[in-house]
Amino acid sequence: MLDEIVISRAIIETFTEKLTRNLDLDVAIVGGGPSGLVAGHYLARAGKKVALFERNLAPGGGMWGGGMAMNELVVQEEGLSVLSDFGIPAQVFCDGYYTVDSVLCVSSLVARAVSSGLTVFNSIGAEDVVMTGERVSGLVLNWGMVMKSGVPIDPLTVRSRFVLDATGHPASVTEVLCRKMGVRLNTPDGKMVGERSMDAEKGERQTVENTREAYPGLFVSGMAANTVFGGYRMGPVFGGMLLSGKKAAQDMLALL
Amino acid sequence: MLDEIVISRAIIETFTEKLTRNLDLDVAIVGGGPSGLVAGHYLARAGKKVALFERNLAPGGGMWGGGMAMNELVVQEEGLSVLSDFGIPAQVFCDGYYTVDSVLCVSSLVARAVSSGLTVFNSIGAEDVVMTGERVSGLVLNWGMVMKSGVPIDPLTVRSRFVLDATGHPASVTEVLCRKMGVRLNTPDGKMVGERSMDAEKGERQTVENTREAYPGLFVSGMAANTVFGGYRMGPVFGGMLLSGKKAAQDMLALL
Amino acid sequence: MLDEIVISRAIIETFTEKLTRNLDLDVAIVGGGPSGLVAGHYLARAGKKVALFERNLAPGGGMWGGGMAMNELVVQEEGLSVLSDFGIPAQVFCDGYYTVDSVLCVSSLVARAVSSGLTVFNSIGAEDVVMTGERVSGLVLNWGMVMKSGVPIDPLTVRSRFVLDATGHPASVTEVLCRKMGVRLNTPDGKMVGERSMDAEKGERQTVENTREAYPGLFVSGMAANTVFGGYRMGPVFGGMLLSGKKAAQDMLALL
Amino acid sequence: MLDEIVISRAIIETFTEKLTRNLDLDVAIVGGGPSGLVAGHYLARAGKKVALFERNLAPGGGMWGGGMAMNELVVQEEGLSVLSDFGIPAQVFCDGYYTVDSVLCVSSLVARAVSSGLTVFNSIGAEDVVMTGERVSGLVLNWGMVMKSGVPIDPLTVRSRFVLDATGHPASVTEVLCRKMGVRLNTPDGKMVGERSMDAEKGERQTVENTREAYPGLFVSGMAANTVFGGYRMGPVFGGMLLSGKKAAQDMLALL
Amino acid sequence: MLDEIVISRAIIETFTEKLTRNLDLDVAIVGGGPSGLVAGHYLARAGKKVALFERNLAPGGGMWGGGMAMNELVVQEEGLSVLSDFGIPAQVFCDGYYTVDSVLCVSSLVARAVSSGLTVFNSIGAEDVVMTGERVSGLVLNWGMVMKSGVPIDPLTVRSRFVLDATGHPASVTEVLCRKMGVRLNTPDGKMVGERSMDAEKGERQTVENTREAYPGLFVSGMAANTVFGGYRMGPVFGGMLLSGKKAAQDMLALL
Amino acid sequence: MLDEIVISRAIIETFTEKLTRNLDLDVAIVGGGPSGLVAGHYLARAGKKVALFERNLAPGGGMWGGGMAMNELVVQEEGLSVLSDFGIPAQVFCDGYYTVDSVLCVSSLVARAVSSGLTVFNSIGAEDVVMTGERVSGLVLNWGMVMKSGVPIDPLTVRSRFVLDATGHPASVTEVLCRKMGVRLNTPDGKMVGERSMDAEKGERQTVENTREAYPGLFVSGMAANTVFGGYRMGPVFGGMLLSGKKAAQDMLALL
Amino acid sequence: MLDEIVISRAIIETFTEKLTRNLDLDVAIVGGGPSGLVAGHYLARAGKKVALFERNLAPGGGMWGGGMAMNELVVQEEGLSVLSDFGIPAQVFCDGYYTVDSVLCVSSLVARAVSSGLTVFNSIGAEDVVMTGERVSGLVLNWGMVMKSGVPIDPLTVRSRFVLDATGHPASVTEVLCRKMGVRLNTPDGKMVGERSMDAEKGERQTVENTREAYPGLFVSGMAANTVFGGYRMGPVFGGMLLSGKKAAQDMLALL
Amino acid sequence: MLDEIVISRAIIETFTEKLTRNLDLDVAIVGGGPSGLVAGHYLARAGKKVALFERNLAPGGGMWGGGMAMNELVVQEEGLSVLSDFGIPAQVFCDGYYTVDSVLCVSSLVARAVSSGLTVFNSIGAEDVVMTGERVSGLVLNWGMVMKSGVPIDPLTVRSRFVLDATGHPASVTEVLCRKMGVRLNTPDGKMVGERSMDAEKGERQTVENTREAYPGLFVSGMAANTVFGGYRMGPVFGGMLLSGKKAAQDMLALL
Repeated sequence: MLDEIVISRAIIETFTEKLTRNLDLDVAIVGGGPSGLVAGHYLARAGKKVALFERNLAPGGGMWGGGMAMNELVVQEEGLSVLSDFGIPAQVFCDGYYTVDSVLCVSSLVARAVSSGLTVFNSIGAEDVVMTGERVSGLVLNWGMVMKSGVPIDPLTVRSRFVLDATGHPASVTEVLCRKMGVRLNTPDGKMVGERSMDAEKGERQTVENTREAYPGLFVSGMAANTVFGGYRMGPVFGGMLLSGKKAAQDMLALL
Repeated sequence: MLDEIVISRAIIETFTEKLTRNLDLDVAIVGGGPSGLVAGHYLARAGKKVALFERNLAPGGGMWGGGMAMNELVVQEEGLSVLSDFGIPAQVFCDGYYTVDSVLCVSSLVARAVSSGLTVFNSIGAEDVVMTGERVSGLVLNWGMVMKSGVPIDPLTVRSRFVLDATGHPASVTEVLCRKMGVRLNTPDGKMVGERSMDAEKGERQTVENTREAYPGLFVSGMAANTVFGGYRMGPVFGGMLLSGKKAAQDMLALL
Repeated sequence: MLDEIVISRAIIETFTEKLTRNLDLDVAIVGGGPSGLVAGHYLARAGKKVALFERNLAPGGGMWGGGMAMNELVVQEEGLSVLSDFGIPAQVFCDGYYTVDSVLCVSSLVARAVSSGLTVFNSIGAEDVVMTGERVSGLVLNWGMVMKSGVPIDPLTVRSRFVLDATGHPASVTEVLCRKMGVRLNTPDGKMVGERSMDAEKGERQTVENTREAYPGLFVSGMAANTVFGGYRMGPVFGGMLLSGKKAAQDMLALL
Repeated sequence: MLDEIVISRAIIETFTEKLTRNLDLDVAIVGGGPSGLVAGHYLARAGKKVALFERNLAPGGGMWGGGMAMNELVVQEEGLSVLSDFGIPAQVFCDGYYTVDSVLCVSSLVARAVSSGLTVFNSIGAEDVVMTGERVSGLVLNWGMVMKSGVPIDPLTVRSRFVLDATGHPASVTEVLCRKMGVRLNTPDGKMVGERSMDAEKGERQTVENTREAYPGLFVSGMAANTVFGGYRMGPVFGGMLLSGKKAAQDMLALL
Repeated sequence: MLDEIVISRAIIETFTEKLTRNLDLDVAIVGGGPSGLVAGHYLARAGKKVALFERNLAPGGGMWGGGMAMNELVVQEEGLSVLSDFGIPAQVFCDGYYTVDSVLCVSSLVARAVSSGLTVFNSIGAEDVVMTGERVSGLVLNWGMVMKSGVPIDPLTVRSRFVLDATGHPASVTEVLCRKMGVRLNTPDGKMVGERSMDAEKGERQTVENTREAYPGLFVSGMAANTVFGGYRMGPVFGGMLLSGKKAAQDMLALL
Repeated sequence: MLDEIVISRAIIETFTEKLTRNLDLDVAIVGGGPSGLVAGHYLARAGKKVALFERNLAPGGGMWGGGMAMNELVVQEEGLSVLSDFGIPAQVFCDGYYTVDSVLCVSSLVARAVSSGLTVFNSIGAEDVVMTGERVSGLVLNWGMVMKSGVPIDPLTVRSRFVLDATGHPASVTEVLCRKMGVRLNTPDGKMVGERSMDAEKGERQTVENTREAYPGLFVSGMAANTVFGGYRMGPVFGGMLLSGKKAAQDMLALL
Repeated sequence: MLDEIVISRAIIETFTEKLTRNLDLDVAIVGGGPSGLVAGHYLARAGKKVALFERNLAPGGGMWGGGMAMNELVVQEEGLSVLSDFGIPAQVFCDGYYTVDSVLCVSSLVARAVSSGLTVFNSIGAEDVVMTGERVSGLVLNWGMVMKSGVPIDPLTVRSRFVLDATGHPASVTEVLCRKMGVRLNTPDGKMVGERSMDAEKGERQTVENTREAYPGLFVSGMAANTVFGGYRMGPVFGGMLLSGKKAAQDMLALL
Repeated sequence: MLDEIVISRAIIETFTEKLTRNLDLDVAIVGGGPSGLVAGHYLARAGKKVALFERNLAPGGGMWGGGMAMNELVVQEEGLSVLSDFGIPAQVFCDGYYTVDSVLCVSSLVARAVSSGLTVFNSIGAEDVVMTGERVSGLVLNWGMVMKSGVPIDPLTVRSRFVLDATGHPASVTEVLCRKMGVRLNTPDGKMVGERSMDAEKGERQTVENTREAYPGLFVSGMAANTVFGGYRMGPVFGGMLLSGKKAAQDMLALL
């Protein structure tokens, strides 16, 4: 005989325990797109305490939609090893170009990363950062619905040794840090450079190169890295995104 | 050296081949929630040609959000075997009640079903059915964006031996059939009965019992089954949903 | 030396003369989709005074978008003669199926119909009909912007011997007539029957059969005919639409 | 006997072939207003491979509406030759001023340009450019619906030897190039100058003068030319727009 | 030396005195269109205590816009006497048809009616009626902004010996009476009949004939009269509207 | 030294404990207007376990706004005793009519009720009821933001011996029960009767008379009582609302 | 016997004649608030050809609403003479302060100004100016509905010896001149200064002082004058507004 | 026997008297959040004439929602004395951290402050300030609904010896002063510094330190103080907010 109250209690208590357990993290990732999920996977697999916050109901970002809603993605040679780590099969299209079903790709990235120990909090976004002196030391969180509706409800916070801004084009964590704290980033002029127009070849390379610490305590990956350090966009080819997530994980692991 | 044109071509050609290959199906599933994904998995695993159409960018429906956005789900004893088929681990909460991380659960359902051979077309919804005499014989499809925006753009169609209405509470495929064709369903008075209030115990049992053919060529599963045949809702407990999807698959397999 | 005032005067005076000239018509067509344009063409070519009112800025309706925004249309054998009258080339796809570039098709329908003498008033819609006893004898017109915005601005009217409801799925002219006048249409039970689900074969045939007088003074064509008399929808195949427009013209010509 | 699946296949395959064939172009035109259509016509007639991308369902832009929705346009003497090339009749209003029915004018521009070999992709817009070093070498495309809705879906790309920005007042292609790449345009101070207030005489002349290459690989025409190089607006007189399109075509032909 | 506080006090006190003085009325008119203003004028001139409530900021309703926003109105012979009572000049268009500048007409109706003693409360609408047994005995008022926004704010009330529903097409006072009280109106079947399509001749005549008591305490005038008793609409000809307002005043005066 | 993580933990743990403690209630009240707050106060003061769910951020409903946003309320003689129980001072306006500052009144009702032991969950609404056989036995809850946004997120539930529908005009709990369960209420014809127009005297009396059990397990109070059993509305006079809440509490106490 | 077609013709022809007659003006006023109406009245009374363009359906602007929707206005001693010219009665509130019913005031301003010969085009706004060399020489007009909706429809133009910007707070005509032409205004630094906070005394005085030519051909009056030259706002006291309109008329009359 | 008219009169007259009595104040507070309410309480208790203006229907601001809608707040040791002045009980969570039920907290702050003599005008916001020379000397008020809707309705004003900007994050009163008057604030560079990211410890301390006079006549408190003088945000801990309100009151009392 099923009891609605036990069902409610089971969810409330399990969730509260999960949330409370993740208030103090090694790495707090913002954004559930490809680079955030990949970084989360490698960090969790290495035994770190890592959680990912995605303000929408579903993680995956723009990756579900392939190119112009044709739900296939392209990955080049260099990205295959990451796909392989996630057990995602790719089809050869022509020399050096592989296609992947975008629905299979996103769902596998999520499923594998969570299986590896990453905790994903969907419907929760980061509206600000926590500062400890001259260092980013955590996130200011709220329900995604609150952030969209503009209803005035106060946030909660998590502490973390590193924050990873994997929010894609807007690089919204880095943006709020610049706007509110007026800090100097590790960029040529200390400011966010902005994403450039499309050049797939350069974009893919720069996404990886730009994946690094933008400010003490704050790493950037994926398109957010290109927005912060100024890189080309690359469209529906995802090798660079995957490698960016892996590099972010490796760099932070070296410091943890 | 990456070439944007090859990337575009790879996506266009791979997607078009996938779409064209799925214009004539054994089963066309509408709605990417739990019962649709489970049904798709078992049908595909049995070698049937089956595609699922989900009008939103991400499949998974309301399952991502757990209960009141606390991202955990409850599954009872009877549902464990389906979880096990999908490789999804559950934690005991108390006697007969198990919790599952909702993000892991949805992503695993999707990933495993696609791996089994189900083709998922996300961002594509069904706005109507195709009729052949007194039988539903296919779907009228359009981009989800077109359906939401009201821009007048004509649809395309797929043919299928069976359609599975897994659209949840609205049972929108069955609803359009009733509204436009005025048909008599396999319900006591020939009309959609409507979903009832909450009784988790009854709701779980009825979801499975109500999973059957509602009209020649049209099966219903999950909450759509309760909407069509009149069943209680059950809230964030998902055993019945999973079993409903499995039963829908088994019943259709017996007829294919 | 260009003078802005002369430009303004040229437009105001030419338009006013055109509008005033069309206040008393043989046929007033509502809706700038394929059947309305085709009917307008044949009526104008036969020397009748005919104007078409389209509430959007551009005529053409849903025809611009092909199927799911892939801008190609299908026409079957029977529709080729109408295309030929408009000078629109079709490509053979397979036996009995021809494709037409949708942009070329719509623009040619419009251009040729206007060249034949049809006056098109775009941005102007019909919000009601004029009655003379038990007969529809004209249209109540307003700017499309007024109709959309709900700003309370009174309409103007045109008189016509026949009105053609070519408004597509909503059959909005016939709907307003039924709702406000409570009249009995020439349908089995005197009411609008409603469009049915998809059956391309039946839909194509019924569109033509249902093209007839629905009430004294009021003809229906295209999808509006199927909505009024109860026919199947047919999707992005347009032979029936073209033939419906031609039949509407022929039937009205026989009575004028 | 009509088959819905063959209809779907006909559209999917014909469109895919058309799209794939246009991934590598001589000229990619953005914006389906008068200058873009005229340029497309002359380029296609000269045998070039040229496609036009219009993010709305219907091409034609503001030209359908005449002046203040009175659907007549004014063309002066100099523009008559272009009208004549498109087979569009004009009426003398007074010395040097001619009026044209705006519906006939737009539909004829579209129909004739497509007949000449221009491929029009409606419902598809350009959200960015492709760069090859210091040169614009293509467009980043997406469904117009995606651009309006803000749903995160990745684009596809086309390559072209020249891009023509015919987007009207916003000059949106040039704007995105400046904003994202920070380039120096061929304007006095390297920036977009902005459109000025109305002076029909000067505006008409400047539209043609300003039609030229604004950056390597990027031409501008019509009102976009005045926005980029700083010209007066001219209202509902269209001779300059037509001549601008013709000049753009001629200048690019000289370089192709 | 101007003092803001005195300005505020002057407005608050003058308005409060005006509002309090009008809580108990001979006639409460709802809707500031032509028939309401005319009725208000004649009632006030006869020394009755009468107030008009208009939920929009400006009274005048649709009369400001003429026909299709061409700001001229038509009045026939019979309406000239009312215009003359308001000092509004009319121009002969042709035999029996006079035109009036719509801006002059509305502003003069308002100015003259208020000069005669009518109190107009603009920005205040009627959301319900007050009942005393089987009789309408007042209005339930709220700010128009509150009614539009849906913010839950309680209303205030006025008492009146008669209420005049001059709300135009929706006849919203009579509609709320029927919906909430389920009363039987003085119509053939006791229900609101609804406005019919256009017949200017009949509409003009019926507007006057239908101006009468629809329920004890509730009169209807103008288009609301035609909506309640079933009359034709008449478009931008206003003789009947003016005469309807005059008749409403006369009928109520006979009973007061 | 303040620690953000301790602050977060304090809120999460205190709230979770409060929520879990209230999953099984004597009375679950829906709607934080006057009758719900008063009922909650008396029930809590009598030692019952009672919680109130209000879907907006702030409880109080329309009572904050007085009449037409003039923030004063009226209470008649009979209501003074309830005000006195809450320590709310009233001013005599004239014989039998007292005014109360609406801001003081609402805040005192809330503060006193919570002090008495009522738990208020704001931002949480009831979207459905829980049924046990032929009896309402609990509520289906969700975040108010989820209910407004339409995002598909599953609810949680509470069980209660009685539910009090204090949702005001819509009587939304009773409405969902009727719509989804098709039950027969304790009204003359078993259906919701609907609120009537205004009669303050009758409305005040009926609000109290109509406060009773509408269906096994479901009480109604305040305006919801008038909506269910058919009573007049009364505007900004609140004696009946207060007494209704008190009567609801007394009646349920007699049964608990 | 009323004929709908004659009614339509009467409106179209009378309006077109009125519009055509006003294409070449002495003064074109933008904005139908108090200063624009007063200026129009005195200019017309002096025999000048003057038209006023108001983008909303009703002229009068914010004056209808009194202070905080309490529909009374305050006028001080100095303004009484203008009220008297319009035949508007004022009540003494206290020494030097007079109140006026706002509905009577606005309607009388409009009615009297039009009677004096001012032509008001409501529903028509100015989106830009016409330039002749270094002088404003006319307006670029469009339907207010077009300006609000963003539908791309080209404008028409009028020529005038002077333009009066009476658009209130935004001073939108002057703003567009500055933004698009980059001109130097007759202000200290050549730019629009912006409206200041409230000081009724100073605001009233400055409104009149700031009423002057802001650029060759362009006068400003009312709050637009304070926005352009930097003056205090004054709230619901209108003497300065009335005097500003009178001064604008006098200054332009001296130049015409 | 209840009389609706007496009810209306009671509200209108009581409110008008209250409003008129508050046109000339010692302190005018803008914003009904914690610091504004606390300041109002202490000022009123000290016998000053003080009113608070809150543009929403309910005061309390974001405090109702606790942290992420979990309706509990945290207060540290230093804030307990203020809670105690308001009679609000707190629970120890751990050493130095106390939790408070947010609903009880807000309602008690409001109820106690009003009981102490503070007048709260809800639904009324401040859109600007009144200036007397180089000093803020009052507020420009309007209905909150008017401010949100953009309907052009003029404001009213109150005069006050001090204004307290307690509007939270936007510091909207100070912002409008800077934007419109271009004044130099008492900040290092004379401009608003802006709120910083989160540091609860520093934020709590700075909120109190930053509570001071920002410009002659204008105090700031709560988060508005941190926005004006540049302080960290602190999330759902409220001790600093309460103390800020108390300090604002004390500082102003010293000057009154």
